[in-house]
Amino acid sequence: MERIYSIELLTPFILNVFLKMGCPAKDAEQATDALLNADIRGIDSHGIARLSGYIRLWEAKRVNPTPKIKVIHETPSTATVDGDAGLGLVVAPQAMDLAIQKAMQCGTGWVSVQNSNHFGIAGYHAMRALKNDMIGIAMTNASALVSPTFAKERMLGTNPICVAIPSGVEPPFVADMATTTAANGKLEILQRKNEEAPLGWIQTENGSPTTDAHALKTGGALLPLGSDKEHGSHKGYALGAIVDIFSAVLSGANYGPWAPPFPAYVPMPENQPGKGLGHFFGAMRIDAFRPADEFKANMDQWLKRFRDAEPIDGTQKVLVPGDPEREMEKIRRAKGIPLLETVIQDLQKIAEKFSIVFPQHSGD
Amino acid sequence: MERIYSIELLTPFILNVFLKMGCPAKDAEQATDALLNADIRGIDSHGIARLSGYIRLWEAKRVNPTPKIKVIHETPSTATVDGDAGLGLVVAPQAMDLAIQKAMQCGTGWVSVQNSNHFGIAGYHAMRALKNDMIGIAMTNASALVSPTFAKERMLGTNPICVAIPSGVEPPFVADMATTTAANGKLEILQRKNEEAPLGWIQTENGSPTTDAHALKTGGALLPLGSDKEHGSHKGYALGAIVDIFSAVLSGANYGPWAPPFPAYVPMPENQPGKGLGHFFGAMRIDAFRPADEFKANMDQWLKRFRDAEPIDGTQKVLVPGDPEREMEKIRRAKGIPLLETVIQDLQKIAEKFSIVFPQHSGD
Repeated sequence: MERIYSIELLTPFILNVFLKMGCPAKDAEQATDALLNADIRGIDSHGIARLSGYIRLWEAKRVNPTPKIKVIHETPSTATVDGDAGLGLVVAPQAMDLAIQKAMQCGTGWVSVQNSNHFGIAGYHAMRALKNDMIGIAMTNASALVSPTFAKERMLGTNPICVAIPSGVEPPFVADMATTTAANGKLEILQRKNEEAPLGWIQTENGSPTTDAHALKTGGALLPLGSDKEHGSHKGYALGAIVDIFSAVLSGANYGPWAPPFPAYVPMPENQPGKGLGHFFGAMRIDAFRPADEFKANMDQWLKRFRDAEPIDGTQKVLVPGDPEREMEKIRRAKGIPLLETVIQDLQKIAEKFSIVFPQHSGD
Repeated sequence: MERIYSIELLTPFILNVFLKMGCPAKDAEQATDALLNADIRGIDSHGIARLSGYIRLWEAKRVNPTPKIKVIHETPSTATVDGDAGLGLVVAPQAMDLAIQKAMQCGTGWVSVQNSNHFGIAGYHAMRALKNDMIGIAMTNASALVSPTFAKERMLGTNPICVAIPSGVEPPFVADMATTTAANGKLEILQRKNEEAPLGWIQTENGSPTTDAHALKTGGALLPLGSDKEHGSHKGYALGAIVDIFSAVLSGANYGPWAPPFPAYVPMPENQPGKGLGHFFGAMRIDAFRPADEFKANMDQWLKRFRDAEPIDGTQKVLVPGDPEREMEKIRRAKGIPLLETVIQDLQKIAEKFSIVFPQHSGD
């Protein structure tokens, strides 16, 4: 059961929630734009459906609505940022913009962030580089739900990576992916429908393969990209580990099983070695390597050649990373955002709590 | 059928081959060290077994033994290098060392390379950063053997990525991986034994899943990490594409299906858009983000915690990326390098061709 809500009406609602949390106006606008961008691009698990989760973190005083975000270490091409426990939706764009500024000065910019919280979708941040004719990179660690190859224990988050690459006339390349076989959001969809998961997505608490989409609730774990050793799960594990180390060990945040949990009711892991969650951002100026127009001409050829690759099945053409999200964005900007009944109820409760108005839906 | 050869005897043999090809002494030493490092670390497909392939590329004048390697574009943190069609084994270490120099100056260094050839294993190059207390990154594109998700056509190489991360007292983190489910070398092992491949490694020329380890010879393709769409092959495809673009579009080399083939008898693709193969290297100084001793203490804790993670099966402990290669290196440095009979015959022919002596084996 879904209803459609217009972006124009959802925007002021979300903005008001962040203002009620005590965010300064500019931060509230930034957080709203970042959060809603997930829904617009079709990554529903990371958008407005998470708003109540952010509120609970704020109520538990794990999110600081008025952070003093500061640079605590830097060189011409790098910086480490302390997010002061702010919303990742606010900390991350500032850190990404700092990477972009550094790149303007010396070709590339790289920013590691400690003491932050969940930042929404990686793609939103990485894509900020595109308009500057730069390649953008964004990654974050997250609470441990994933078992390394050969392990029973949950040691890593779904640790996404986004790489956004500018182009000329073709739509750009935007790879935004969890380093697991399937993102947690995909599992949640199966849970709601009470359907089984494909083998290779999850394991039980004993480390056995399972199709039970609810296995995470009984101590199971998501599997790294590759699913099992024979199909390269040690590579997905390595990718998730690289994201964890760049985001959290390089910055001084909490890594591996010590990453702070997203649900506010889950207690913090004991003996945490760092501060908050970690992110890592990069910006590389195209013309730091070759003239941007030459690169863009070649990139257009690359994109066209891959989109035109001979398909296995005539009904499904070959895609370039970012194509599905771009198609979704076109549809949702025109028609609005579909929200599930459970999400709507959740948002209505938020509206009551803060004495603000939740908008009417614009269609079914 | 294998025989063991000591590193001390293989080294001067390989060195003499590169000298006979006309490499200057310093380049021949560099190429020997890089090539043999693959055998030492257990990646037999990329070591001395490839020596005859390099010779054939030199005979076909696709490899220039006396390249004038030069920087053609740069900023404080970046450079683009023209390898002048040199051996990747010679071009890549120079480009990596340039990235390290740039990192010393401004925190990080990033070097894209055009007009090169196969560079051996990515790990050899990335690991040069470790002794400088830097994170090292190395990647390369390669001739097209891999089909994107939904595609029949071979569009990408196995495009490996290595990320090497320094530590304190624990052995370091070194993830060195093809962006396919299985590296081509693993398939070659099955071909030699006439065994079937697991489903998910390869597809037929029609794009159907197959266990035929010989399917690449009849127009089939390797599959990206993830194997199929349901298990995230679009992510492995995205990773391979990122390597291709960073290595070849950013540098002005040949990308996608235009990458030069390794076998010298395969004709060059028509209408190539760039020069030779491409690589991409990065070096990030740890103390550009935080004091190196703090990072190393946390990194040691990270490594120990992951190595100590609870295993599924008591007989197989949880590994950290780089552990298997390090174990192999210990054994091979002590006992020597095992070579297959076919490789030995190949090397004996090379010895005859160049009138040099192929050493006696040191064990069976």
